[in-house]
Amino acid sequence: MSVIAACTDGIGVLTLDDEKRRNPLSLATMREATAGLRRLHEDPRARVIVIEARGLAFSAGHDLSEMVDRTLDDEREIFAACTELMATVHAVRQPVVAQVQGMALAAGCQLVATCDLAIAADTARFSTPGVKIGLFCSTPMVALTRAIGRKRAMSMLLTGDLIDAATAADWGLINAAVPADRLEQTVADLVARIASSSGDTLAIGKRAFYDQIDRTEPDAYSAMSEVMATNAMTCDAQEGMNAFLAKRAPVWSS
Amino acid sequence: MSVIAACTDGIGVLTLDDEKRRNPLSLATMREATAGLRRLHEDPRARVIVIEARGLAFSAGHDLSEMVDRTLDDEREIFAACTELMATVHAVRQPVVAQVQGMALAAGCQLVATCDLAIAADTARFSTPGVKIGLFCSTPMVALTRAIGRKRAMSMLLTGDLIDAATAADWGLINAAVPADRLEQTVADLVARIASSSGDTLAIGKRAFYDQIDRTEPDAYSAMSEVMATNAMTCDAQEGMNAFLAKRAPVWSS
Amino acid sequence: MSVIAACTDGIGVLTLDDEKRRNPLSLATMREATAGLRRLHEDPRARVIVIEARGLAFSAGHDLSEMVDRTLDDEREIFAACTELMATVHAVRQPVVAQVQGMALAAGCQLVATCDLAIAADTARFSTPGVKIGLFCSTPMVALTRAIGRKRAMSMLLTGDLIDAATAADWGLINAAVPADRLEQTVADLVARIASSSGDTLAIGKRAFYDQIDRTEPDAYSAMSEVMATNAMTCDAQEGMNAFLAKRAPVWSS
Repeated sequence: MSVIAACTDGIGVLTLDDEKRRNPLSLATMREATAGLRRLHEDPRARVIVIEARGLAFSAGHDLSEMVDRTLDDEREIFAACTELMATVHAVRQPVVAQVQGMALAAGCQLVATCDLAIAADTARFSTPGVKIGLFCSTPMVALTRAIGRKRAMSMLLTGDLIDAATAADWGLINAAVPADRLEQTVADLVARIASSSGDTLAIGKRAFYDQIDRTEPDAYSAMSEVMATNAMTCDAQEGMNAFLAKRAPVWSS
Repeated sequence: MSVIAACTDGIGVLTLDDEKRRNPLSLATMREATAGLRRLHEDPRARVIVIEARGLAFSAGHDLSEMVDRTLDDEREIFAACTELMATVHAVRQPVVAQVQGMALAAGCQLVATCDLAIAADTARFSTPGVKIGLFCSTPMVALTRAIGRKRAMSMLLTGDLIDAATAADWGLINAAVPADRLEQTVADLVARIASSSGDTLAIGKRAFYDQIDRTEPDAYSAMSEVMATNAMTCDAQEGMNAFLAKRAPVWSS
Repeated sequence: MSVIAACTDGIGVLTLDDEKRRNPLSLATMREATAGLRRLHEDPRARVIVIEARGLAFSAGHDLSEMVDRTLDDEREIFAACTELMATVHAVRQPVVAQVQGMALAAGCQLVATCDLAIAADTARFSTPGVKIGLFCSTPMVALTRAIGRKRAMSMLLTGDLIDAATAADWGLINAAVPADRLEQTVADLVARIASSSGDTLAIGKRAFYDQIDRTEPDAYSAMSEVMATNAMTCDAQEGMNAFLAKRAPVWSS
């Protein structure tokens, strides 16, 4: 097993645990990660999920040894598993935060771009270097262009150049770059604050985010107006609004 | 009445005028604001519209007292009115500029994100804090994600944290943050410059902006090529081009 | 002829060559530029394309003298040719880099926004000033909004103000602003690095970029998964991966 999924004190943690190989997203690893996220999705104790990695690299991307001298169906299997992992990051009910301690390359960079939030050590680096080995990062591109926009994504994709964590934060690929020795605590503080909100509300909001993001603005408003109206009728919203009006702390049901 | 709509020297001004309650976007206020915008849309004197607010806050968002112990249809009525207000900001023929002197929260932040342009005092603050009261800011999210992108919108939505005006400008939520004592003059100078252009041209351009924004790029070009060809045939474009070629000032018909 | 298309040492160069008139995008110039790009697309020696301009201005935009006292069909012809030029920048198999040595206005700014990458002299300036002459920059708006987002595009479109190169880089309209005397070398170094990758891979990646950019995220992943699987089966990808695993330099077939 190269992925560990666990839940402690309300925080689900998915750990990429193959540091000797720089945490490649092999077919097995992607399937384990998807399964681990699904278990955390079902785990009523997990209020937020952190994706972290062991060793010097966050992830070096796909396992190239699985992609040479294969059939087209073999290749398809790999990219189907990769896409399923990314879709699962969006599909789980909890917010997913990437804790990026080192290099995130190709599909590893895609995973960071895909997470709801990402905090990196200021020593972390990011790139989509597939162009250098003849395999353009076309699936990482989907997440990358939607995170950082056209010109900057094109720059990363056409050159394969590394960008540093400060640049990644400036471009919106990650939320913040922090000193490496403060990374864990920064993420722990962030997820603790998010976890203090109602679990039902977080789930409603996360599902709504991805429901509206690809719609036209009028369609998005139609869908989100109904989401908010029904959200307002939930017991946690009624409790939250009443607590706010009464200037007391809310007590969540979820 | 908690909203004042007036037109002075070619500038329509919509004022949120309930400073004791921090200018909540109550059902009545949203309907008054929508009606006020429609009157300014019909007012031939109004060339640009400014949305401003009285007191320390720009707007604290929805009036929560209207949302507790209500029926689902009551909640739907509120979000329908909110969506209609935002759609009207885009539908009026004049450019709409938010002049943000203080905190803009939840639907107040949504209103700033929705305006065509926004200038804020450097002391202003912005947040989408619904998550903290069990009511995720799913309708503000529509405008917010389209203004500042995914990771930053997620950060505001999942934490409810305030961001300062400089950050809002850096992220594209507003156009600029200026010293509080220069806010009014900065906005007045900006809208005077915009108002010096042809009213027909501004109306054509604003309508075109929202017409193309949600289309695929090829569809957007099909639509905009026709918009430009017909725009070029208008008397103000012919006057503007002839004046430019003759190095004289244009005289607009509108 | 006001456009020169040539290929030297693997780099295709399209030069706007009417500096006395500030390189206007007249109907003839747009058609020559489109034809030049298509020739470079067909030229097997050209691995990357640079669009550059002679003189002080990159391009002042459309030739207004062609747009006064014309029929609607004349105007349509101009914007059809303009849209075809922009579509061709995206359609050619090579990455296209704008080398912006001076002012890029209106359709000139659109051309910069449309190129895959853009590097500018720090003395360059950008604007969409059509609003000042009664002809809103509605077709430049298509490329501009997709490059720099809503609030900033609205600001440029409604005011017609010039932005400097540092601001253009900060907003993502260009990739970098460099000292004017280092512009040519910076672009030469960039395109040489890109040109060292497999031509087939660059062509696959560029086509994929524009194929996925307007799709919903799930649709984009469906399309890109198949693109990557088939890309992985190409001889350059197999060579690139094998070379990487063997820690040797790859030898491209294209």
